Parts: sequence; structure tokens; C-alpha cells
Amino acid sequence: MTEREPLSTDPYKGVRDFYPSDWAAHERVFGIIRERLSLWGYEEYAASPLERSEIYEAKTSEEIVNEQTYTFEDRGGRRVTLRPEMTPTLARMVAAKRRELVFPLRWFSVPNCFRYERPQRGRLREHYQLNVDLVGVSSDEADIEIVNIASSVLKAFGASPEQFSIKVNSRKLLNAACDAAGLDEDASRKYLRLLDKRDKMEKTEFSEAVRAISSTDPLDLIEKKDSSVKETLNELAHVINALKERGVTNVFFDPTITRGFDYYTGLVFEVFDTSKENNRSLFGGGRYDGLVAAYGAESVPAVGFGMGDVTLMDFLGTHKLLPHASTSPLIYIGTPSPSDIPDAQLFARDLRTRGIRVFVNLSDRTLGDQVKDADRRSIPHFVAYGAEERDSGIIKVKTLSSGLVTELSVPDIAAHLSKAAEAKS
Amino acid sequence: MTEREPLSTDPYKGVRDFYPSDWAAHERVFGIIRERLSLWGYEEYAASPLERSEIYEAKTSEEIVNEQTYTFEDRGGRRVTLRPEMTPTLARMVAAKRRELVFPLRWFSVPNCFRYERPQRGRLREHYQLNVDLVGVSSDEADIEIVNIASSVLKAFGASPEQFSIKVNSRKLLNAACDAAGLDEDASRKYLRLLDKRDKMEKTEFSEAVRAISSTDPLDLIEKKDSSVKETLNELAHVINALKERGVTNVFFDPTITRGFDYYTGLVFEVFDTSKENNRSLFGGGRYDGLVAAYGAESVPAVGFGMGDVTLMDFLGTHKLLPHASTSPLIYIGTPSPSDIPDAQLFARDLRTRGIRVFVNLSDRTLGDQVKDADRRSIPHFVAYGAEERDSGIIKVKTLSSGLVTELSVPDIAAHLSKAAEAKS
Repeated sequence: MTEREPLSTDPYKGVRDFYPSDWAAHERVFGIIRERLSLWGYEEYAASPLERSEIYEAKTSEEIVNEQTYTFEDRGGRRVTLRPEMTPTLARMVAAKRRELVFPLRWFSVPNCFRYERPQRGRLREHYQLNVDLVGVSSDEADIEIVNIASSVLKAFGASPEQFSIKVNSRKLLNAACDAAGLDEDASRKYLRLLDKRDKMEKTEFSEAVRAISSTDPLDLIEKKDSSVKETLNELAHVINALKERGVTNVFFDPTITRGFDYYTGLVFEVFDTSKENNRSLFGGGRYDGLVAAYGAESVPAVGFGMGDVTLMDFLGTHKLLPHASTSPLIYIGTPSPSDIPDAQLFARDLRTRGIRVFVNLSDRTLGDQVKDADRRSIPHFVAYGAEERDSGIIKVKTLSSGLVTELSVPDIAAHLSKAAEAKS
Repeated sequence: MTEREPLSTDPYKGVRDFYPSDWAAHERVFGIIRERLSLWGYEEYAASPLERSEIYEAKTSEEIVNEQTYTFEDRGGRRVTLRPEMTPTLARMVAAKRRELVFPLRWFSVPNCFRYERPQRGRLREHYQLNVDLVGVSSDEADIEIVNIASSVLKAFGASPEQFSIKVNSRKLLNAACDAAGLDEDASRKYLRLLDKRDKMEKTEFSEAVRAISSTDPLDLIEKKDSSVKETLNELAHVINALKERGVTNVFFDPTITRGFDYYTGLVFEVFDTSKENNRSLFGGGRYDGLVAAYGAESVPAVGFGMGDVTLMDFLGTHKLLPHASTSPLIYIGTPSPSDIPDAQLFARDLRTRGIRVFVNLSDRTLGDQVKDADRRSIPHFVAYGAEERDSGIIKVKTLSSGLVTELSVPDIAAHLSKAAEAKS
């Protein structure tokens, strides 16, 4: 082999390496979410990150398809995109088995999604995004359930209603207001984009931009409860009241919430962190009744939300709600000499059949150094296994935190360790 | 919006959609593997499928980098590859934290890997591949452990030693034989490639191809136990004996096993299905002591294996070892009328806090049709929740398989359902 320059150890720009402790934290968080969603009767699905590019050209906002995706041509001339979001894939999968599936579908997924953009805090090029969708129900009971689940997922970590707020709005409401203000489809879309950026603009700047589109600001019609928007306002009030009755007390009407994607058709909502240090939008979702129809199937009503892992972790960190995660083995089997390793492995095998997670030393370090090694690995128990232990069948288990040593016969070890683990948790 | 042609519902060529039952089967299989590996003290890591292309140009076989990867240039001019395998990423991650990590590392991962090739049975463009690696131990105790784990993972599904066989060999052995036969580095590499394809060639065809490289077939030197290969033969015999002593009885020496990658430096092994219908290579691995050094770090000894999900599923299917997987809710809450849905959701909330997976009807179907719906979804229990149940607090739980109806107060439901689930399993 020819000599080479050493390779860089950096991952590709904007993506993350997950070392075991990072991944344990990630999986613990999504494990809690999976458990919560299964209580709501939701089932997990998955798909490849590689998607045919055309599915994003149907209804995603143009900016995302043109400038912010990883899109390339494969050697067979097919245009491929690394999915920037999961909803178009979900719609495709639903349309593909439209006749076999039993509706409603209560589905979720935790795909990694890709965006080609400048990496910055909370906006990596790859992130994991929980997607929760209820497909096949047009009534507002579905909207209520989805918002309730968004709240339930945060509560699963111990978040209190004071730590986040849920702002709801309706695309139907905004459309009615735009209609009443005399905006055509194109102008309405422009107005919605403007509204989406409102928080980042000066008040006068926003008013001026609106005036360039319309003489009446549709928001004013909503505020005045104009007759053109009364019906949808009442519908939204019903959703909010039902949520409050079901224990979601931190839900508010906010007519400026739009969500970015073009495909929303009804309810839209966004969840905000209320803390001063991290006061920002966490995630959101809404109703998208038209997306499945893009595949030629009859339209299928659907409502859902997407929640990114980075923002979620930030929220949990800010509020000290990050769950403890560990995948460390329970016991370290030390060996007085390397020649004891084969016997130690047989002993380990015995413990494994009893359900005990075991780490076997394979080095020629001294027993003292092996104890230190166990400690560095946060393995709570240590046992030295040599000829004496093999012959007598009596094992001395040391609990490293207390220094306590207990003499046990092999069959008693499992009970001893699980008792110790219980006492600790 | 302008009218469009309906989009195709197919996924991108050669990749799979995982509907909930598919994903449940996948996750059940890898759940069993995760559990088994944690008993061996192994911890899970992960990384992005996007990698800098250069890391595959170091030591992977040339064919793979040049013709079989998804490689493209991002808008910043960086060459990006969708990982075709995990080992180079693992080596990169180890090199990056060389000084912080506590060796040995017992690590595993289940990445999706991508190959640009004609889709065929068991060879998709994207598959999931279990990777198990023991990093930082140069002694053959590490080789023994890794082969033992490969066996242990299959046994975790109930596979018997008669259903698969493990063939081991050593690159050191092959290199010593090539040296003794007078082959230089280039000729040795050619010979190994030839050996890798031997099973697919006629005997005479193979002999002729060997003669074009060397007057002596290195395999003959191994068969004759030539003095040049005695030492490595003895080492291999020790590994095989140790495995047999530890209960891995189906392990055999096979000097024709080479494995595809250039980076192997010692032990190589391959696991075969022994059934007549599915008699083929399942997976394999080996020792690769030089890979971390490509990143400029000192070399770190490492040994591991990779196992693809498609071949694994085929193996489990052939031998009727596929585990039962279900993520269905435990109880279906029907509603006599849609106006009962809000109360039904409150009731569902109560059950969820008791740890019960609940499916709430949101449709206006009749109760009879709701029972049929529960049945189609394989939800084992049904309860109708209306004004009567709300007022009395007495619920009639119907077990759909037996038709049995039990009257219960709400606090007793959890115990009743978990008893029923136990009786069934």
C-alpha cells in the first residue's frame, strides 16, 4: 500500500457522530416517546431516507425543494432526494396501500431528515424528527387528539404546562380572512409567507409589506370577528375548549401562526418554550387533507406534527428534564492473570444466561487497575474470577460505590445484583 | 395550484417502505439482538449515513468505492458518500476520540448502508447491517469473543448449531502461504481475490487462474502444513478449540475463506446457513488492526463482524425462527355515538395512566362495525363507552377471541388485561 496523508477524523459537515453515551441519551429520550405513543395506540413505521425527488415538488414550499435539499441524479438518471421531512413519504405510503390499510391510521416515525443549509445552533444538516400522524379522520376530534399528544409527549418527561405553551390557528380561518379582504390565491400565499416572518419584523415594516399586497389586513378582520370568519373562529374555540377539558390547559389561540408548508389545509399549531433563556418555537404541525390526493388516490384527511431532536433536547436540558440514560454493564469480571480469561468467559456465560449484563476483562492489567477500569466505565460491581473462585464456586462481589464486599454462590448473584440496582434507582 | 399528473407511489428503486407490521418485525428482531449484545457488555453507537468520500478510498476494496457507492458533490464542493458499510466510520470515530475513550471498546450499531447496484434477492440498494466490534485487544481472546457473539446472536433466536456453520481462516495464514509461494504484495492481493471467487468457479478454471499468478498454489502449502504456515495454523487451532470449549461446536477451519475487504489483517470468518433451501453465506467479519492508523493515530487492534437484515430475516424465515411481533393496542374503546367521543377520550386517558395501550374510535360507525374494526386491527379487547358507563363506572370488557364479557370497575381493568395478556403468551 502506498503512503497516504492521514485522513481527517471529522464527520461530514453539519452531521453528528453518536458515541455510546450520546446514543444512549438519544434512545432514552425517544424510548420514552415511543412508550407514550404506544399508550395512545400509535404504531411506528419507517422508510428509506432516499426518495424520488418529484414527491417534494408537489406541495412542499418552493424554497425547500430548490435550495435546501440534497438532490442528485443516480447513474440510471433518476433524481433522488435525501428526505427533508417525512410527511410527503407518509402520504406516498398511505396512497400506495390505500385499499389495504385499515383507517384511521395512528402512526409515528422517527426518521433522520436532511437539509442543505449553513449549520447553526439547533439547525444541523441532519436531524431526527419525530412524526406523529392521525390519518383518515376529518372531524376535529382528530385535531384535538394530535394537539393533546403533542402536549402528552412533553409531559412524559415531566414538563409542566407552565414550561411550554401551545398556540393554535387555522389555515381555513386565514383563507377566509384573505378571501374577505379580497386577496386572490397568489396574494393569499404571499400574505401567509409574510405572516410567518412577522415575529422577525418591526411592526411598521410588517404593516407596510401588508399594504403592498392588500388594503385590508386580514388579521384585522379576524380580530374584529368579522362575519366572514365567525364560523371558523367558533370551530377553533371548540377545539381549544375540548383541549382544556381534557387537561391541556396551556393552549391559546394565535391568528399569526401559519407554519411553513403549503400543504396545510386546516388546524395549524406551534409549541413554544416559555423559559426566558430558551424562549422559542419548539415544533408544530397541522392538518393536511390534500396531500394523499397528489398520488391520484381520493383525498384522505390527515393531521400530524413533527418534532426535531435537537430542539427537544434543548428544551429538556433547559428545564432539567433530561432522563438518566445508561447502557453500562452491571458487573465487571476481573482476571487475576490472562490465563484466567477462558474460565472468566465461561463464568460470564453463566451470568448472561441469568440475564446479567457482563463486561469481561481481556487485558493483562493488575486487578487494582481493573477495578479502576470498572470505575471509569461506571460499572457498579466488580468480581475477580480465578482458580479459587472456579474451584469453590464462591464469588466475592464488590459494590464499587460503597466498597462493600458480599460472598455469594453463583446462583445468588443475579438476585443480589438486581436488588442492588433496585435500591439505587 | 396547477393540475399535475398523479405522482407514483413507488419508493425509490431498491429501497423498502416499512409499514407498521414490517417495522414491528424488524424492530423485534433487532430488539432481541440488542438485548443479547447488552448481556455481552456491548454498547450501541450511531453516525450519519453521510460520510466524507475520502474515508472509503483508504482501504475499502476499489470496486466498491468506484462503482458501487452513492457518491456526489455537495454545493460546497465536498465529496459525499452514502456509507456502503460501517467499519470506516467506526475507525474514524475511534481515531477522533483516541485519547478520551476507555479501551477496549465493546461497541455495536445497526446502520442502514447503501450500495448502488442492481436490486436482487437479498441485495437491495439500502439494507440495515448489524455491526459488532471489539476494539483495543490484540490477543486472540478478542477473536474468540467476536466469533462467539456471532454464534450467540443466532442462538438468541433459537437457532441450533446444526442450522448454521462458522468457517474461520486467517489473513496472516494466507499471507504467510503467499509469501512462501513467492508472491509479491500485488500478486498476493490478486490471489486473494481469486480465492474469494473460488466457490463460483470450476475447479480447473481456478487452477488455471492460479497458475497464471504462481507456480505453487498457496492453498497447497496450507494443506501440507508447510513449515512456513505452522505457527499461524496453530494459532487458528487454538481459537477453534477455545470456541468449542465455550459451547460453539459448529466452527470449522476453511483456508478458502477470505472476505472481500482489503483491510483485514488476521482472523476472518464467515457464517453459512446449512439448510438445503437457503444454503449460502449469511455474514462474516474479521480482524482489521490497521484501519484506525489511516487517521494518523497509532494503530488500534480491532475485530468485528457485520450482519445484514435481509439475509438474517431469510435465515430466520427458512428455519421458522422469526419472533412474533405486535405493537397493537390492548383495548379498543368504542363509542355508541360520536357525541360520546370526548368522554371516551377522558376514559382512555385514565387507562393510559395505568399503562394500558388504548385505541379510541373516532368514527360514527355502529358499535357492531367498531367491534369488527377492532378485530381487523388484532386488538384483543373491546369496550363500549357511553353515558351509562360514565355514570356507573362499571365497564363491560369483551375479549374478542373468546367472546367472554367481564364486568369491571375502572381500577380493575389494568389487572384484568395484563392477566389476559399473560395467559395468552
